[in-house]
Amino acid sequence: MLNSLFSNIPLIIQDTASVEGDMGMLWMLLSGILVFFMQAGFTLVESGMTRSKNAVNIAMKNLLDICVGSLTYWFVGYSLMYGDTSNGWFFWSGLFQGDGADLFFQTMFAATAATIVSGAIAGRTKYSTYAIFTVVMTAIIYPIAGGWQWAGTGWLTEAGFIDFAGSSIVHGVGGFAALVAAFMVGPRIGKYVDGKVVPMPGHNQILATLGVFILWLGWFGFNGGSQLAWGGDDAVGASAVVVVTNLAAAAGAMGALITTWIWYGKPNLAQTLNGALAGLVSITAGCGNMTEGGAVLAGLIGGVIVVFSIELIEKKLKIDDAIGAASVHGVAGFWGTIVIGLWGVDGDTPIGLINAGETEQLIAQLKGAVAYMVWAIVLSFVVFGILKYTIGLRVTEAEELEGLDVSEHGSLAYPGKRTRE
Amino acid sequence: MLNSLFSNIPLIIQDTASVEGDMGMLWMLLSGILVFFMQAGFTLVESGMTRSKNAVNIAMKNLLDICVGSLTYWFVGYSLMYGDTSNGWFFWSGLFQGDGADLFFQTMFAATAATIVSGAIAGRTKYSTYAIFTVVMTAIIYPIAGGWQWAGTGWLTEAGFIDFAGSSIVHGVGGFAALVAAFMVGPRIGKYVDGKVVPMPGHNQILATLGVFILWLGWFGFNGGSQLAWGGDDAVGASAVVVVTNLAAAAGAMGALITTWIWYGKPNLAQTLNGALAGLVSITAGCGNMTEGGAVLAGLIGGVIVVFSIELIEKKLKIDDAIGAASVHGVAGFWGTIVIGLWGVDGDTPIGLINAGETEQLIAQLKGAVAYMVWAIVLSFVVFGILKYTIGLRVTEAEELEGLDVSEHGSLAYPGKRTRE
Amino acid sequence: MLNSLFSNIPLIIQDTASVEGDMGMLWMLLSGILVFFMQAGFTLVESGMTRSKNAVNIAMKNLLDICVGSLTYWFVGYSLMYGDTSNGWFFWSGLFQGDGADLFFQTMFAATAATIVSGAIAGRTKYSTYAIFTVVMTAIIYPIAGGWQWAGTGWLTEAGFIDFAGSSIVHGVGGFAALVAAFMVGPRIGKYVDGKVVPMPGHNQILATLGVFILWLGWFGFNGGSQLAWGGDDAVGASAVVVVTNLAAAAGAMGALITTWIWYGKPNLAQTLNGALAGLVSITAGCGNMTEGGAVLAGLIGGVIVVFSIELIEKKLKIDDAIGAASVHGVAGFWGTIVIGLWGVDGDTPIGLINAGETEQLIAQLKGAVAYMVWAIVLSFVVFGILKYTIGLRVTEAEELEGLDVSEHGSLAYPGKRTRE
Repeated sequence: MLNSLFSNIPLIIQDTASVEGDMGMLWMLLSGILVFFMQAGFTLVESGMTRSKNAVNIAMKNLLDICVGSLTYWFVGYSLMYGDTSNGWFFWSGLFQGDGADLFFQTMFAATAATIVSGAIAGRTKYSTYAIFTVVMTAIIYPIAGGWQWAGTGWLTEAGFIDFAGSSIVHGVGGFAALVAAFMVGPRIGKYVDGKVVPMPGHNQILATLGVFILWLGWFGFNGGSQLAWGGDDAVGASAVVVVTNLAAAAGAMGALITTWIWYGKPNLAQTLNGALAGLVSITAGCGNMTEGGAVLAGLIGGVIVVFSIELIEKKLKIDDAIGAASVHGVAGFWGTIVIGLWGVDGDTPIGLINAGETEQLIAQLKGAVAYMVWAIVLSFVVFGILKYTIGLRVTEAEELEGLDVSEHGSLAYPGKRTRE
Repeated sequence: MLNSLFSNIPLIIQDTASVEGDMGMLWMLLSGILVFFMQAGFTLVESGMTRSKNAVNIAMKNLLDICVGSLTYWFVGYSLMYGDTSNGWFFWSGLFQGDGADLFFQTMFAATAATIVSGAIAGRTKYSTYAIFTVVMTAIIYPIAGGWQWAGTGWLTEAGFIDFAGSSIVHGVGGFAALVAAFMVGPRIGKYVDGKVVPMPGHNQILATLGVFILWLGWFGFNGGSQLAWGGDDAVGASAVVVVTNLAAAAGAMGALITTWIWYGKPNLAQTLNGALAGLVSITAGCGNMTEGGAVLAGLIGGVIVVFSIELIEKKLKIDDAIGAASVHGVAGFWGTIVIGLWGVDGDTPIGLINAGETEQLIAQLKGAVAYMVWAIVLSFVVFGILKYTIGLRVTEAEELEGLDVSEHGSLAYPGKRTRE
Repeated sequence: MLNSLFSNIPLIIQDTASVEGDMGMLWMLLSGILVFFMQAGFTLVESGMTRSKNAVNIAMKNLLDICVGSLTYWFVGYSLMYGDTSNGWFFWSGLFQGDGADLFFQTMFAATAATIVSGAIAGRTKYSTYAIFTVVMTAIIYPIAGGWQWAGTGWLTEAGFIDFAGSSIVHGVGGFAALVAAFMVGPRIGKYVDGKVVPMPGHNQILATLGVFILWLGWFGFNGGSQLAWGGDDAVGASAVVVVTNLAAAAGAMGALITTWIWYGKPNLAQTLNGALAGLVSITAGCGNMTEGGAVLAGLIGGVIVVFSIELIEKKLKIDDAIGAASVHGVAGFWGTIVIGLWGVDGDTPIGLINAGETEQLIAQLKGAVAYMVWAIVLSFVVFGILKYTIGLRVTEAEELEGLDVSEHGSLAYPGKRTRE
């Protein structure tokens, strides 16, 4: 199996007996460990930004993502994404194909794609329904779409599409699936009353803040590890990726902070946190193809976009995405994908519409961004549609009012308080 | 002192001037840093799973473990475990013997062994008593037992025993010490009333969940770092260790989740968390001697076992182990040790009863697992016995009812709430 | 820009095409990632140790530190600290000069210096005022002072001053700025009533404990990464740095724990946490120039000092430093700087007053420690003075009583509880 270890992208570190190969493996393994930790970040962001009566359910969904994702991606997902036999759209090599640092790193990406959906449909979705969706997401939806670009010979790679670490492949797919899921499941009871939108603040903004710091931390592995190698140009490259990732996150948070300061009159924490995440998503595709200044601008705009996108989806589309996952991951992911076509670079060469006057890269980026959006929307509609007419999507009204922690899991998050908030 | 740096196991990286030596040191140092972070995970799991009136006490005990462990293991522990002079049972080289990345990594293991006991006896044990036990555990009980196998020339190494990262050496010793400690200290007031078992849920399951994610994260260093080297086969080996560690954790969590879904009727968070930890403990001994499939099976069974073990100890044995530490670390540690004798491998060669039809390895594993269990039980009985008849084990009834945070430490964990839960 | 990548200190890893260069970059990048995580630690320590009605404000200030710090340090800070043109006091190379792992690592130090001030002035400071101070701190105050030593050709380097990872450069500057800030802003309403000091306990000691564990973790990168290289002697050196860092932290926590046990009658959690941090600060300057025993002693004394310093500042000086930042970072930073002149070593050679009978190093250490203290105090006085007579330092009394979360940010940290604690 060793010959498939780093086979997804042509690399200089094929030889595991070389020092460069050893260092590349170390960097990928450490990056995978950082990405693993993002699951904790998602758990805190999602539970912190929703009510305490559903916090156990959030934790159980996030545990399911990493557990199911680890098992299904090992079982079939890796093969469906990086298999040797392919027509450019579908890949396959047989069961249990990945191994080592590469399997570990890629597994964590699959789990991330799944977990994005979790928060959007918080507070009313059946656990069994979510469990089935997670299996489908990590075993089929994400791996097939991932192969189009990251297998190295897929149709989007051939089309010149760039998505270094997955603005579209991971976050776009997860974010648009979250949008469909929130739409299909319907809003929480009390969210829309007499045509008015009722705010439903989360129960612990400090946990949400900690969660965002953990996600930001993990993202250094998410983006940096996507270099897939270490040594020489790869060491310099991966370091640069981490720098622009941090700058875009900082700019995204500042974008949202300033936007809310102007628009709401006060700098708002929840939106600043979303801004940081949107900044990170905005640089995920382009972190290997963006100058530092370009990254700041991409992140800043991502942080502004996310504030308006959340308002739009909540108030105009009236889709109850409980934590803004569709905006943070889907909309910012779309933005992060196409911005490469605006002011991206290839080494020192500008390749975007704005910095080079060329439309070729922008068209390739639009092709990929739309493809992932459509794929996620269609597949999610199909899966949630089937689930709706079979086991059902929602808990009962009484169960929802009591909270999913009691109804679905039989325990409270904070037993000492006996809260039903 | 440099010549003792990597002396515990014959390695290819003796030469610190070599690149392999440099990379091995980097991997061990980073792994040690990850294992250090497990102390935060234990603090959150233990405080989250117990009542808020004892949370400060839990934090103070975990701080003690890492502080005392760092000092005593540096002072005598390392020498007692890896010393050059030995009869196969006891090792010694003089005071202050370890240094560098190796000392750091091994220190974190000693602190882990101690901290396992902390949660089991939560809510009624005197802080001074616990402090003395921690000194004995990190300075004597753990190092002596560790030398039997990890010194490289101990009697269990000679017996062919395998325990790659410490299912028995760390978790078995800690877990069975916890069982004895909980038995000796006796149950919390109100735990057993008129022969009935009263549930005492923890106060914050989200913190407990975060704690488990941190432990899972740290375990990649715990198991992966136990390769003690990086480069060539060691890089491939350590990567494989991380992969099987993650698979076993995922399978363990799923095992407990499904077990509770069937048995309790609802998937239970606390037990799923215990299942993940049990899965991790179950693969700790065999992470270098298990196929991916074998790891999944070992973890899955570990996750099922832990649910029943917790019920058994709480309801049949009537020992009040407040967070199930004896089951998670002791029982699952025993299981993780002997499973190598059932379907373990040595490279590509099956060595177990089931996959090779051989009993030799199983007997060696039973020998080691029983040895560590007996050692931990006997030594803990002696130490807690002496403490019982000298300074005493428990706080007064009034102090216990008020909570140890006030009585032992003079402050509340959550002062704003003035809670006495 | 590559030639400035590791230019701050003469190194053996100038050549990025060498394996040592690659490993050095990996270590610095990973260390920077660990230091980044310290921002989460500061957020938890500061919010946990203050009241819940100001927790959102704490989170927003810490987010500002990392966001503003990342942007300003990239913009001008790096150049002001490591620029090629210099008179020994001021450095400059033009805008946007740093890059790669080095910029990333140094950026995290600038953000740390800023965030130390945040907690001291919790609960009454205007957010806009804090925002401006953070810009000045990360863009000017810290970088200029940093250049004196870390540029490699500054006047303190020439004077023989040693501050390996920043006891004075980062923690001293941050800590004494915090002291001035707390003095200038004035105490919280209700802190001093009729000449008596009113305790204002924080709202969540478990979060504070988690925060300290995260800071301790991050400090391994803070100190270890300051080796700025990996490979051969640097690998051995960085490993030794991590070992003494851990020992000093453990000793510092024990120092405070035992001090409070004797003095208060009970071992106190908040002070033990401060002791761990003081131990870490105490070894930050000398982590490359201290034996293991010397580090334990330095940390132990730091942990004792911090308890008395907090009492002194709070009760005698009547400066309301809400979390003891001036003591933990300023006073312990001063101690950690001068202790090198008492029992520091240079390799195997003793250089201190006590272990070598020499005063030369002690004088150099005093020179640097005083210089950084004076610089921080003077600059902070000027900046807060200007802010006081322009936009003002404090929120209104009504806003302070309601809590800054509502008045400055329009949201509660824990909405479900509707608390105003």
